[in-house]
Amino acid sequence: MFHLELEPRFSDTDALGHISNTALPVWFEQARTPIFQIFHPTLETDTWPLILARLEIDLKAQSYWHMPVEIRTGIGKIGNSSCHVVQEAWQNGKQVARGVAVLIHFDYAAEKALPIPDEIRSALSEHLMD
Amino acid sequence: MFHLELEPRFSDTDALGHISNTALPVWFEQARTPIFQIFHPTLETDTWPLILARLEIDLKAQSYWHMPVEIRTGIGKIGNSSCHVVQEAWQNGKQVARGVAVLIHFDYAAEKALPIPDEIRSALSEHLMD
Amino acid sequence: MFHLELEPRFSDTDALGHISNTALPVWFEQARTPIFQIFHPTLETDTWPLILARLEIDLKAQSYWHMPVEIRTGIGKIGNSSCHVVQEAWQNGKQVARGVAVLIHFDYAAEKALPIPDEIRSALSEHLMD
Amino acid sequence: MFHLELEPRFSDTDALGHISNTALPVWFEQARTPIFQIFHPTLETDTWPLILARLEIDLKAQSYWHMPVEIRTGIGKIGNSSCHVVQEAWQNGKQVARGVAVLIHFDYAAEKALPIPDEIRSALSEHLMD
Repeated sequence: MFHLELEPRFSDTDALGHISNTALPVWFEQARTPIFQIFHPTLETDTWPLILARLEIDLKAQSYWHMPVEIRTGIGKIGNSSCHVVQEAWQNGKQVARGVAVLIHFDYAAEKALPIPDEIRSALSEHLMD
Repeated sequence: MFHLELEPRFSDTDALGHISNTALPVWFEQARTPIFQIFHPTLETDTWPLILARLEIDLKAQSYWHMPVEIRTGIGKIGNSSCHVVQEAWQNGKQVARGVAVLIHFDYAAEKALPIPDEIRSALSEHLMD
Repeated sequence: MFHLELEPRFSDTDALGHISNTALPVWFEQARTPIFQIFHPTLETDTWPLILARLEIDLKAQSYWHMPVEIRTGIGKIGNSSCHVVQEAWQNGKQVARGVAVLIHFDYAAEKALPIPDEIRSALSEHLMD
Repeated sequence: MFHLELEPRFSDTDALGHISNTALPVWFEQARTPIFQIFHPTLETDTWPLILARLEIDLKAQSYWHMPVEIRTGIGKIGNSSCHVVQEAWQNGKQVARGVAVLIHFDYAAEKALPIPDEIRSALSEHLMD
């Protein structure tokens, strides 16, 4: 499991006074960086080998500005070409959101999914999360 | 079904060259405004009666800056306190994303879910989407 | 002078209840599109010939969600390689912000400023704003 | 001088491949938090006593994702009701941007500027930046 501590930005709030739901996909994307690096160590955008196919987020409690957030990131399931990234956001001792991002190993030039090679599969499986 | 035509903003793009996945929740939220108005005609934020409990988005194709997007919004299911808002994003004749947002009719002061009143239920059901 | 009507997004608000100051640079950037097209008709990002050197924004009044905004965009001054884009945001009959963006005609490969060619200079000067 | 180290988010990039100019006002706002606290220790948004009147940003070099940014924040000038916050963004040993934010001590209910009290003026002046 990977841990990222991030600071909500004031512009992550909205007029309801709390963190906007639209900030969670931004935070979770940022916290997927170590998963991106397993697939693509250089992180160069010209040769990026992943596409996001699906995003699910359960919002479990309000989150607030000016209080750090911890994002926990692990792997939920590894398919032939796809990989489920499971993520949780915690603030002040409470789980405020849980998400699943479905990534596809992808060849942008050929516009098709690629099987996940064994060494990547093996590296991913070290981060399985229940 | 409600229709919103919106213009992607340049800052909705990311370094992969297309629209960021994080823009879709922003667009879909904006397109839920007519649903918010069914629950809360004034849209005053101090008395906002809804909370977002869950967000699901399937990303089906790349979307691009400098090409209008149409968001189609309808109702998928109405529970006792909750309501599924089904949304599609279309660009250049293609469905680029489909999402479901689960809204809860909510009393922020008491911090509890409220049943959806009959007149709101009836207004929502005029916008059922298959 | 160019006119863009845009709809503030709910996520443009912040916890102070109004539009965040950080939305203005986003709106103004979006409204510079016709200026970008004078320099670069295809708008292709791989061959983008402009860099933003400076941004000034005076915030004159609160702006609000759920009320359209009109952005007026013109040219303030044309230098050898640079061009001042003057922009105003109007909402509900009131000027809410005024900005100046200094664009440089730029060669990203050589990393140096380029003189503005005469035909572009002439096209820009049709949009001078007092 | 206050120091904030922040991590650019992937969604701070745009299709030109680098950090969007629109991220700088967001970063600078976040880094003004210690200044906000001098005026308003609780940071409660209902009683927020400041309004942003003007924003200037000089963009001096490209900035990049996946490399930390340091924001340096100090005070440039203190007027009767206003205060200039001077900010610099540094990445990889290079100054990438410099900004000035003009804050007004403000009574939102009365909609008018308030003189800056002496104890706040004195606390601000401990952070003067050349």
